[in-house]
Amino acid sequence: MMKLKLILPVLLFANQLYAQDSLTIRKIYDEALVNGKCYENLRYLCKEIGPRLSGSDNAGKSVIWSKKLMESYGFDKVYLQEVMVPHWVRGAKETAFIIDGKNRISVPIAALGMSVATPKEGLTANIIEVHSIKEVEELGEKVIKGKIVFFNRPFDERMVNTGEAYGASGDQRFMGPSIAAKYGAVGVIVRSLTGNLDDYPHTGATLFDKDGKNIPAAAISTKGADKLSAMLKMRKLPLVKFYFKQACQMLPDVVSYNVIGELTGIEHPDKFITVGGHLDSWDLAEGAHDDGTGVLQSAEVLRIFKAMSYRPKNSVRAVFFMNEENGNRGGKKYAELAAQNKEEHIAAIETDAGGFTPRGFSFEDVSNDLMKKLSARWKPLLEPYEIDRLIAGHSGTDIGPLKDKRPGVVLIGFRPDSQRYFDVHHSSNDVFENVNKRELELGAAGMATLVYLIDQHGL
Amino acid sequence: MMKLKLILPVLLFANQLYAQDSLTIRKIYDEALVNGKCYENLRYLCKEIGPRLSGSDNAGKSVIWSKKLMESYGFDKVYLQEVMVPHWVRGAKETAFIIDGKNRISVPIAALGMSVATPKEGLTANIIEVHSIKEVEELGEKVIKGKIVFFNRPFDERMVNTGEAYGASGDQRFMGPSIAAKYGAVGVIVRSLTGNLDDYPHTGATLFDKDGKNIPAAAISTKGADKLSAMLKMRKLPLVKFYFKQACQMLPDVVSYNVIGELTGIEHPDKFITVGGHLDSWDLAEGAHDDGTGVLQSAEVLRIFKAMSYRPKNSVRAVFFMNEENGNRGGKKYAELAAQNKEEHIAAIETDAGGFTPRGFSFEDVSNDLMKKLSARWKPLLEPYEIDRLIAGHSGTDIGPLKDKRPGVVLIGFRPDSQRYFDVHHSSNDVFENVNKRELELGAAGMATLVYLIDQHGL
Repeated sequence: MMKLKLILPVLLFANQLYAQDSLTIRKIYDEALVNGKCYENLRYLCKEIGPRLSGSDNAGKSVIWSKKLMESYGFDKVYLQEVMVPHWVRGAKETAFIIDGKNRISVPIAALGMSVATPKEGLTANIIEVHSIKEVEELGEKVIKGKIVFFNRPFDERMVNTGEAYGASGDQRFMGPSIAAKYGAVGVIVRSLTGNLDDYPHTGATLFDKDGKNIPAAAISTKGADKLSAMLKMRKLPLVKFYFKQACQMLPDVVSYNVIGELTGIEHPDKFITVGGHLDSWDLAEGAHDDGTGVLQSAEVLRIFKAMSYRPKNSVRAVFFMNEENGNRGGKKYAELAAQNKEEHIAAIETDAGGFTPRGFSFEDVSNDLMKKLSARWKPLLEPYEIDRLIAGHSGTDIGPLKDKRPGVVLIGFRPDSQRYFDVHHSSNDVFENVNKRELELGAAGMATLVYLIDQHGL
Repeated sequence: MMKLKLILPVLLFANQLYAQDSLTIRKIYDEALVNGKCYENLRYLCKEIGPRLSGSDNAGKSVIWSKKLMESYGFDKVYLQEVMVPHWVRGAKETAFIIDGKNRISVPIAALGMSVATPKEGLTANIIEVHSIKEVEELGEKVIKGKIVFFNRPFDERMVNTGEAYGASGDQRFMGPSIAAKYGAVGVIVRSLTGNLDDYPHTGATLFDKDGKNIPAAAISTKGADKLSAMLKMRKLPLVKFYFKQACQMLPDVVSYNVIGELTGIEHPDKFITVGGHLDSWDLAEGAHDDGTGVLQSAEVLRIFKAMSYRPKNSVRAVFFMNEENGNRGGKKYAELAAQNKEEHIAAIETDAGGFTPRGFSFEDVSNDLMKKLSARWKPLLEPYEIDRLIAGHSGTDIGPLKDKRPGVVLIGFRPDSQRYFDVHHSSNDVFENVNKRELELGAAGMATLVYLIDQHGL
């Protein structure tokens, strides 16, 4: 370990308490930036383990490795929380063609998670382009029946935060297939949820009612979507048809685990601050930004505290949730057990928006008064580290179930810069090489800072 | 052009003036993000023209192309400003070895700009590692004479803003060679100015007094520096020597140009707001982030205004400065002519910190009162676009000479996120592929927003 000297920015506050906080935060950053371990840990998770879809062998390996990692750091408690998870598998690589008379034009697709296979020989049908679920409902069974529905509403590039663009386009992938199925569609193709024009399909879960019909559904690359749309405009139906083949299937649920590390509070061991991300990932790449960065930043928060001999007043947990991507079973289990054990949860912070430069935090369903109070108290401390954007907003999927199960908990989302996230999200580009070491470490330091402030001063 | 619909965030201000500003800013962003041209322009500058060191053929080509580009946008005035620039050339690729007894270990180096060549057969000498200029002065001629001095103080990774780390390490490159020469050094090797551990030398200008001795000086990659340092620690002098060969030379000054586009003010045509970056670049790569992004964002500011039919009250100039990297002759010439023509300059904004996500602006040598006033007025308008970090600080090299020549001008630096800049800065990695389209466009929109606010409301 390098010997650390304190450097600027250390704020000199008249108030003694602020001065102490300011010094401690500087120590947190020094530890993260000089002795940081999350980048090398992320390399291991991405390169030595790789994709970790729930139920896969790799997901199992990642659980064992994560537990060992946290044990090696000497946290006070390290344990697994058993949870049954869905086991969806992609099967053989998908193929798809636009059929234009006698021409077959290949386009890149990837089955949506939880979708079903096409017939073995593939599926060919007329294809109709729509831009919203409402449009499907308006067209109705008369038009939709027997066709492949092609959802092609692009990201709204005018939105400054790309997460909002994802939210605004996402219903096509989440709900589009199940609703098209109700009107008799035989398959669904969805424009990939990215603002980029490229050749990579971006997968992700689609939702089917238990009682509803499940039809084959796949994401198409944005360039493929533009090509298909252009051909549909040029030629009249039924000259243009679409063919695709996918072999995905749903296997029986399997046992998996949340992985939890804890520093036990010295004043209130029975009160908890949770910081976490999800250990599972999609199968197309290494789940680097989604969400390898998140789990390893979470463990890093506790490692930083140990390294600087900070003993929290309250118990601080790093939770590596399992199955965020296609079921959120880990998140539900964690909340359920928290309720069962009557744990008092002060706050939960989720990092699942990529390992980019941190900019601040979003607070879910908190009062304006609390936002004002936190801003007045903490912004001066956060500003030197450029993480002072404290806003109202969504927190995270994994910690969401705590809201009902542990009322009173404050749910917080870590907010890194959003511009590059959907370049890689759920696609084959989500690899270690696209993570920047400093951006990752600054995120870990930012989260440790927030946890420290909550631990010291409450909310 | 796409038809634009206004979307959130449009702030609803009670104050009518704020409401109008809010709407206009939204239009600026819509134009930049939907119809933006700077990314494609940057591709052309990087890929079709390439490196543009002052005095080179490519620098000349880039001047002609830049003028045509701005003319094609129909700005009110487009013209060149003649300026004599230094013409330093690298010559054949450098070679360097650590000589350890009979072993020769190759390390990557690149001559520092304005440095001289070694003898044709190269230069071999004992090498001594130092960490500061002060150390050289303390060791004195007795120790330094006849040796190669190896400056090896690394970036301070604890600094959150990497620009500060650059500032804190930069004297080794700027002044190290000339000071070592005074004490009789025969050559200088400087650790590359980056926080990354990699194999790429990062060049950059070094400064020699006109009267002082100019000795060969080169940057070594950070991995090379670590290797050299480790060997110096293991072996005692004179077992370890260093060899390097470089063929750079200074040719006579040549004619070049600043390229200027202007929208003439409808109320105050004789008052100016300048926005600019530098057109010249180092020779090792494409000068993408340094500073292709800056000049093309500057032109984009004016293009956005034209596209949305915004006619500024004051004259707004986009200036593509020549020769920022090794002489700042373009910046000096611009200020000199501004004085000669008795132009009134309201503000000058420089973008020369990379085309990354914008975070705000730094104001050079302004009063606390002005900072407070601007923050109170503008932060609510800038906050929805996440460019509300308004701080005191350095503006830019090109616009710097205006301070003396046009007192009263407010100098402002565009502040993008700094984390990735020194990964590429002055190295062979500064290529188009490392620029993100949205980050670049958001920067152009942010600058247009600031220019708009200054134009409407003054400072």
